[in-house]
Formats: sequence, C-alpha cells, structure tokens
Amino acid sequence: MDRPRYYTLRFSCPDRVGIVARVASFFAEHGGWILRSSQHSDEDSNRFFMRVEVRADSLSFHLSELRRRFEPVAEELDMDWQISDSAVKKRVVILVSKQMHCIYDLLERWQSRELEIEIPCVISNHAEARGLVEWHGIPFHHVPVSKDNKPEAWAEIERLFVESGGEAMVLARFMQILPADLCDRFTGRILNIHHSFLPSFVGASPYLQAYRRGVKQVGATCHYVTADLDQGPIIDQDVTRVDHGDTVKDLIRYGKDIEKAVLARGLRHHLEDRVLISGRRTVVL
Amino acid sequence: MDRPRYYTLRFSCPDRVGIVARVASFFAEHGGWILRSSQHSDEDSNRFFMRVEVRADSLSFHLSELRRRFEPVAEELDMDWQISDSAVKKRVVILVSKQMHCIYDLLERWQSRELEIEIPCVISNHAEARGLVEWHGIPFHHVPVSKDNKPEAWAEIERLFVESGGEAMVLARFMQILPADLCDRFTGRILNIHHSFLPSFVGASPYLQAYRRGVKQVGATCHYVTADLDQGPIIDQDVTRVDHGDTVKDLIRYGKDIEKAVLARGLRHHLEDRVLISGRRTVVL
Amino acid sequence: MDRPRYYTLRFSCPDRVGIVARVASFFAEHGGWILRSSQHSDEDSNRFFMRVEVRADSLSFHLSELRRRFEPVAEELDMDWQISDSAVKKRVVILVSKQMHCIYDLLERWQSRELEIEIPCVISNHAEARGLVEWHGIPFHHVPVSKDNKPEAWAEIERLFVESGGEAMVLARFMQILPADLCDRFTGRILNIHHSFLPSFVGASPYLQAYRRGVKQVGATCHYVTADLDQGPIIDQDVTRVDHGDTVKDLIRYGKDIEKAVLARGLRHHLEDRVLISGRRTVVL
Amino acid sequence: MDRPRYYTLRFSCPDRVGIVARVASFFAEHGGWILRSSQHSDEDSNRFFMRVEVRADSLSFHLSELRRRFEPVAEELDMDWQISDSAVKKRVVILVSKQMHCIYDLLERWQSRELEIEIPCVISNHAEARGLVEWHGIPFHHVPVSKDNKPEAWAEIERLFVESGGEAMVLARFMQILPADLCDRFTGRILNIHHSFLPSFVGASPYLQAYRRGVKQVGATCHYVTADLDQGPIIDQDVTRVDHGDTVKDLIRYGKDIEKAVLARGLRHHLEDRVLISGRRTVVL
Repeated sequence: MDRPRYYTLRFSCPDRVGIVARVASFFAEHGGWILRSSQHSDEDSNRFFMRVEVRADSLSFHLSELRRRFEPVAEELDMDWQISDSAVKKRVVILVSKQMHCIYDLLERWQSRELEIEIPCVISNHAEARGLVEWHGIPFHHVPVSKDNKPEAWAEIERLFVESGGEAMVLARFMQILPADLCDRFTGRILNIHHSFLPSFVGASPYLQAYRRGVKQVGATCHYVTADLDQGPIIDQDVTRVDHGDTVKDLIRYGKDIEKAVLARGLRHHLEDRVLISGRRTVVL
Repeated sequence: MDRPRYYTLRFSCPDRVGIVARVASFFAEHGGWILRSSQHSDEDSNRFFMRVEVRADSLSFHLSELRRRFEPVAEELDMDWQISDSAVKKRVVILVSKQMHCIYDLLERWQSRELEIEIPCVISNHAEARGLVEWHGIPFHHVPVSKDNKPEAWAEIERLFVESGGEAMVLARFMQILPADLCDRFTGRILNIHHSFLPSFVGASPYLQAYRRGVKQVGATCHYVTADLDQGPIIDQDVTRVDHGDTVKDLIRYGKDIEKAVLARGLRHHLEDRVLISGRRTVVL
Repeated sequence: MDRPRYYTLRFSCPDRVGIVARVASFFAEHGGWILRSSQHSDEDSNRFFMRVEVRADSLSFHLSELRRRFEPVAEELDMDWQISDSAVKKRVVILVSKQMHCIYDLLERWQSRELEIEIPCVISNHAEARGLVEWHGIPFHHVPVSKDNKPEAWAEIERLFVESGGEAMVLARFMQILPADLCDRFTGRILNIHHSFLPSFVGASPYLQAYRRGVKQVGATCHYVTADLDQGPIIDQDVTRVDHGDTVKDLIRYGKDIEKAVLARGLRHHLEDRVLISGRRTVVL
Repeated sequence: MDRPRYYTLRFSCPDRVGIVARVASFFAEHGGWILRSSQHSDEDSNRFFMRVEVRADSLSFHLSELRRRFEPVAEELDMDWQISDSAVKKRVVILVSKQMHCIYDLLERWQSRELEIEIPCVISNHAEARGLVEWHGIPFHHVPVSKDNKPEAWAEIERLFVESGGEAMVLARFMQILPADLCDRFTGRILNIHHSFLPSFVGASPYLQAYRRGVKQVGATCHYVTADLDQGPIIDQDVTRVDHGDTVKDLIRYGKDIEKAVLARGLRHHLEDRVLISGRRTVVL
C-alpha cells in the first residue's frame, strides 16, 4: 500500500509552447514512469509552474545522474528547478513558545510516520515543551528571547538551525517576530501559522480583535514568513463558525483546532514540494 | 406540519438576577405556552438579551392586549422590547443593481413561501431586473443614481421605501453607497450582502483584492448598514475554498453562491426577530 | 478577461510509460498552446485519465482536422477519447417537478452567462414551472407521469430530449424514477441531484430519514443516473450543519441551498468535460 | 477571564405550560444568577429538555442543599434531573488501541487545561501508548483482548473503569466491539469516535468502503455506544473534502484530523452536561 520511491521535479519558467512536451518527452525517453503531474500558467506574470513525480525504479540511473541529464532541458527553458527524492526525509526544525497544541500535533504525525520527516531539534524561547520533546528523543534548545538579547538570541537560533541541517523552519505558535534579514536569508523555507484568517487581524491578539469586530467565523493561516509581518505568501487557510455566545477564550479554543490542521496541511504541501511562490501568492500543485 | 401562530418577544435590558423568572412567570400566569426561548448575557456591556416565542392560541387575549399587559414588566426591567406576530408578514423592499443572482434567489424563496414576506416593491438603479420582478407581480422602480443626482435619487428611494410600508431594506448586490443620514434613520433595518469575508477587503473589487493577496478561501458577509462603509454589525458570513488556478472571474463565480446563501440566512434571522445589536456586534438568538 | 477559445481533449486509456509525452508532443508539433492539463492514474484499474485544454488560435487548422490528426495517437494508445470546442455551447435539457429552487438557480446562471449552455427545453411532470420557463423564452413541455402511463410518458420524454438535440439531461429535483433502459442508453449523460449525502438515506424522504437518525449534518449529492437507484457515480457532494432544534421542514430548507450549489457545481464539471467515469467512481480533472 | 464557579442543572420532563417559569423562579427566589440557559421542546415525544448554569456564589448554600431544595420542583414536574458543579472535575477513562492521534490530542487538551478533567487511567488492548501516557503521569493498563479471553478481558476493563471512579469512558480509536451488557450498564456514559459519517459505512474499514463508493467527502462521528454497533445517538459529526486522486491511505490521513476534532467536541459537550438523549437522537443544549 505504501507508494513506491519517486523523484519530484518542480520548476517554474517563462511560459511558451511545448514545455509539457519537452519535459514529458525527456522522461519518456528514459523510460520514466510519471506517477503524478500538475501544472499552472500564471497569466499575470506569463510564467509556467510544473511538478512531476517519476517512479525512481523506472529510470536506469540515480538522482545525481537524473539531475545531470535534466540540466540542459532546464537551461533551454530557463527554469528555476529542483529535484527531490522521496526516500530522503527532509529535516524540519520546529520553533515553539508556550502553547503546545501544534507541537503535540506535529509530534504525533511524526511518530505515526504520517509526516516522513527528520526533526533534528526543537527550539523554544520558553522551557515548557522540553519534557515532551525530549521524551520523543528529540534534542531541545531553550533560547530565551528578551528585549535586550534579540540579536544574540536570533544568531543562536539561526546557528542551531543551520548546524542541524534544517531545510525548513516551522513556527508552531512561536510568539516572536523574526528579524528581517533572517527572513530574507531563508525565503520560502520558514513557515508560520498565524491565528487569524489573513488578511484580517494582523499583528497581536487576533482572537480579541475578531471578538470585538463580531465576526461569525474565525480562522488560521499558514504562510511563508517574509520581512513584512503577516504579509507572506499564503499556503493554506481555514475557518470555523463561532457565535455571539463565544468568549475570546472560546475563540482561542476553536482556533487551536484550525491552527493545528492548517499548519499540518501547509507543512505537508511544503514537504511534498508542491508549493511554488509567485509574487505574493503561492501555487500549490 | 406548519408551525402554529406565535408571538415573538425580543428585548435587551440591564442584566440582573431574576429576568428569566420575571418574563417566564408573566407568560405562565397567562397560560402562555413557550415554544422556544433563548437568551444571552453580554459580560462586556452587562446587558441581557432574550427572545421568546409564545403560542398565540395559548393566550386568551390578542397582541395589543399582550403588549399592554407586558408593558409594566418591560418598564420594571428597563427593556428595549418588541413583540411581533408570526401571522403578520414583514414588508421587505429589495434594492438591486445589475447582478441578479441574489434577487433570483430571494424571489424563489418568496414564491415557494420559504420566506414568508411581502415584497411591496423592488428598486434598482438599473433596468435589468424589471422583467423578472414584474413577471412575479411585484412593482419595479427604476431610480438611476449618478454623480449629479445623488440627493434626489436617494430621496426618491427613501420615499418609495417609506410609502410602500417597508420595514426592512435589503441591498441584494446594490452597488451604491448609502447616504449616512439615511443609514442613521433606519438603523438595524437595512441589510447588505458584502462580497468579502469582512473585515478583509472592504471597499471596491473585493474579489480582485482577494486574488492579489492570494487567499485560499473567499467569502461573503451579511451585515447591517451603518454610516461607516462595510463596518456595520455582522449578522452572518461564510467562505468557500479557492486555489491558485482560479481567476478573478472564478472567485466572483464561487462568491455568488456564498453571497446568495449568506444573504438569505441573514435576512431570515432578521425576519424572525433573532438579531439584536450590541455595539458593533450582533446577538443572533 | 474572458478566456480565449479552446479545444478540450479528454481521454482514458491503459496506463503505460510515455502517454503525457505522446499527447503533449502531438500538440507541441502543431504549435498547440496548452492552457491547462491534468491527469490521473488509477492504480486499481491500471487506467490513465487525462484532460487537456489547447488554445484554438494556436493551431493552424480547425476542430475536424484536429480530430483527424489526433486519431492515430488515440488508436496507438487505445484511448476512449473526445475533443470539444469551447465555442460550441452544449445543449442541456432540464427536468423538474414541483420544487423550483434548482430551476430558478439554473436559469439565473444561464441568463447571467455563468453557464454557457443552450437550454432547448424544460420538461416537467407538473405544470408549476411553465410560467417561469416560458418567461425566459425557453419551451416548456408538460408530460404527466402516472402509474398508468409510465412507458408512454418516458417514451415522450426521451423523444423530446433526442429531438431537441439534448446532450445532457439534468434532473433538477425531478421526482420520478427513470426506466433502467433509458439510463443505459444515456450512460454518463444524465445528472441527478439527490437530497442526501449518499450513500446515506437512499430512496424516499431522505430528510425525514436524516431527522429520525439524528444526524448533525445533512447533505446533497450530484451523481450520474444509472439503473441502480441512487447508486450512480458521484460527481460532487456537500453538507451543512443542523441541530436538535431543526425540524424536518428546517432540514429540507437547509438542504435546498446545498442541492442548488452541488447541482450547479456538478453540472459545470460535466459541461467542462472534466468528469470521467471509472467504475463506480468519477475522476474530476 | 476564567469563568466563575457555577452549578449546571440539566433535566428533561413531560412538556407543559410553565416549566421555565417554575425553574427560573426557583433560582430567582434564592438569588440565583443564571449565567446561561437553553431549552428544547421535542414535538414527537412531547418532552421538554433544559440546561441552566447558575453562579455558585449567587446562592447562599452549597450543592447538597441546592439539590435538597430543588427536589420538590423536580418531583412536581416529573423530571429526570442532575446538578453538577463546575469545580468538580469529571473522571474520564480513555481506551485506545494502536493509533494514537486521538490520545495525543486528548492529552494535549488535558495538559493545557482546555479539558478540565481527571484521567484516572488509560486502558489499551495494545502496549504502544504506554510510554506517552505514563510520561504524562497517568496510569496505563494493558489488557490484551483476543478471541479466547473476551469475557475476562472485558470484566477486567470494567473493573478498572469502576475502581478508578470513571464517570465517562472514551473510546479514542479503540478497535474492539463492546459487549452488549456493558453498553447497557453504562448507557449515555460511553463515547466512541467512529471513522465515518454515520449512517454511511458502518462496521469495518469505513475508509475503504468510502473509497470504493467514490464519495467526495469523508467524515467522522462521535456517538454514545449502545448495544447496536454504530447505531447509538450521534453527538457530533463533521466531514472533509477528498477527490479522485486520494488513495485509501489519504482518506485515512484526512480522516484523522476530523476524528480528533469531532471526538474532542463531542466529549466537551458531554462533559459540560449539554447532551441529553432523546430516543435515537441527542439534544445538545
């Protein structure tokens, strides 16, 4: 029932006639069995986005050779491209503060192998999550962040992320604003779960804002982090119904379920190399 | 299977001990059979809201006498109150511009008696809806609104509304901004369907704004109209999922379904005397 | 903003290496600009499904020539295939009984050109819809169906459908069971909206069944009609929340909104040649 | 921001005039501050259901005295009734098999005090959950259940439940069928999460059944366990969208999120004394 090993090609390039034919023919010539393929033409930017899964055992060579052979095609079509291997687990570093519903949720998905990832470490500006994380056999780093130590703390967090070989950084209810230069250095690699249905209620206390405005649904948004707070490209979002009888505390509670589900879905899309950034928007293939 | 005739009492008052007892005892003393009852205490304003349906045939007197007898209770508790009669259809004036999905939808609900209302007339700043409206036997008034005639046009619309005995005015995709003084004169009686999930995307072209921001759900909001554009108390709202492949035109199309459903739901709540305004929020009992 | 004219190729065939390459290369050789393309491999049946939109003005020949040139590819890959032209409106015959929420909804989508179809006629076993349909300038046929005249009535309905050039038949709350042989003759061309979330509550009075079972959501299902009642392949379905306070009449009312939306969505998928049947399931590309 | 201590009265009784007045007056006479109140009249059974929250510090006596004083009212109206105290945590015993998403979820809600319960122990027919449960400081009992030891195993489970003072038993993906006599002894106290949108797909492998039927949404149902498998009164249910590209494994994965959320919601309703059983249905006040 498990899926066979496959390679995932993901690219974007200027749109023109014949891209699908060129890519599909490349694989066909090498006997490549395409498991899934999806594409998107963005009319505003005139750019083409594509994602292809090819069965690894249908090719007579390995990933490095695949990359070498595909390079001329990529150059011909002026692609931004990447090929990943389903057998290689991505390394995901999780950042968390005091609220633990998202980290519990991610750890469960990791232990059940629903999420096939490595978690080289968890980093927190608080100590609450240490026990749970370490019980799972995952290193935990406590890096307090205060008004006075922000540059040092963020340097330490970045060092831990880089040294652990982190490919993606997940802010699983991490309640600190990232420095702009860090966001820029890891564009498209840092995912946040924001506790509102963006663009509504940016900034602090979105549930309180939502309560005061009297909305009838609250939501959560998984997005890439950019230097503009809560403005990064949205990967996924969802909402749930509330009513006049619900207090701010109730909204927070309903929101937790949405946050967990949306973060997990957004992260999964990211890990499966489905998400391409197109300006302020994402293409999720 | 139809529900028996009933009276609906709706009120708000300062919160204190014994309100439910006082109201319920009043009805019990007169043999009143309570069909439904719901209430809400607002902790911020320390105000109490309640709605009670009483079977008409369980009381030995008529509505005017009920009001007369209830008056001392209402005064004692310092209520804002109203009693309506399920046998008296409310008069709803519909305003529409060029897009007709909401007016089609409302007319269907009216003809099937799902909405038990009178529609004394439909008013439009365009002529498109005339045929359909008149085919249904409903008077249609074409009142063009332009930069140069706004005061006269709005005076005419208000005159038509008042002369037709309109109790509620429904903006069923009516694409003109109401004058502030009109909003103030009919507080809590004008309902609008806004084509976004407020407070996101106020003002013009919300679907284009949503497209550019790259949201993954679009929505619609039914709210009372106030002098602050798109800021009135929200009665109901809902969303639907979209993705990167959807054009602005697709968002508009998906949005139509949400607009129809949310407007109908919000209007129904209003007509059933379920909606009480509490500052910027609504209590929907 | 309108989309340019395009041809839609839709096929299924035995799965093997190189299908996408073969099809995409065919179009690339002729300068065909692929607007959208999607595919699916069914692992159970080992069958491949694909849908491709190609810009009409990117090819130097017309549809009949496209079909002629594509034929060898189709034969080589043993395809079930079809090519349609976005400039040719499909002819959709609507069948309705007494409840008119779906026909109102479809007529609105037709008049606003959201649904780009021809409606050669509407057929009903009742007379209620006549006025509305004829006001729209569409022929209306009243074909009463009773215990005693079923064969004749159905022969008449089939004759009207065929003579009007109907390509799809939509049962928009048509409350008669179709004869099995008619279902067989028009496999994949008759769409029904069933007023429950199938496979729950097949047969009569699904809302009453739902009420008695005490479900907390009710739904509707758009499916192709087959000789097995309510067992045909599902195209789309959706649900809405209900609670203990809702009567059967309330469930029916909530259900109407779901029925309208799901039927419109399912029909649209069908008309856009997105739906391929795979055994008891549909592939919606 | 936390809610003040309150008592919750919950009852059902034959419907008649004056019930709300009688109950509300009882509290008013004793200075009882009603925080929330909701009721429902079931027209089929002619039975009335009500739930009232009263602020504990608004009464001049304690719970036992409240019960003593309320008894005559309850007898007069022929009530089935209960009064609980928000300061007394309910004791919930959790049963789990191999899949741990629900137990992770419940433990997180417990550790964050979202669910204010005692968990005297967790019981499992497998050993997988031991580590996690014991790390949380909760006793874990491994009671293997096989074809040969069912009576003994179930006797042991019942003993553990009773001796731990369990008031509710939660089957958090516990994959064994309960003996009918056990169900009967603890009517309305055993909650299960079934991995389908009941009444669809009762019995084994509901996701496989759903896949084969080709549904476009899968769901989960929280219900009270009765001797009739998967037929007990439904407390809550929900669904999520799937499509033709999703494998059975994908449906299972999507379903996990729905299962967690629905079980938590249903359990919370139960713990807040909101759920009253009315034949095959629940009233959730």
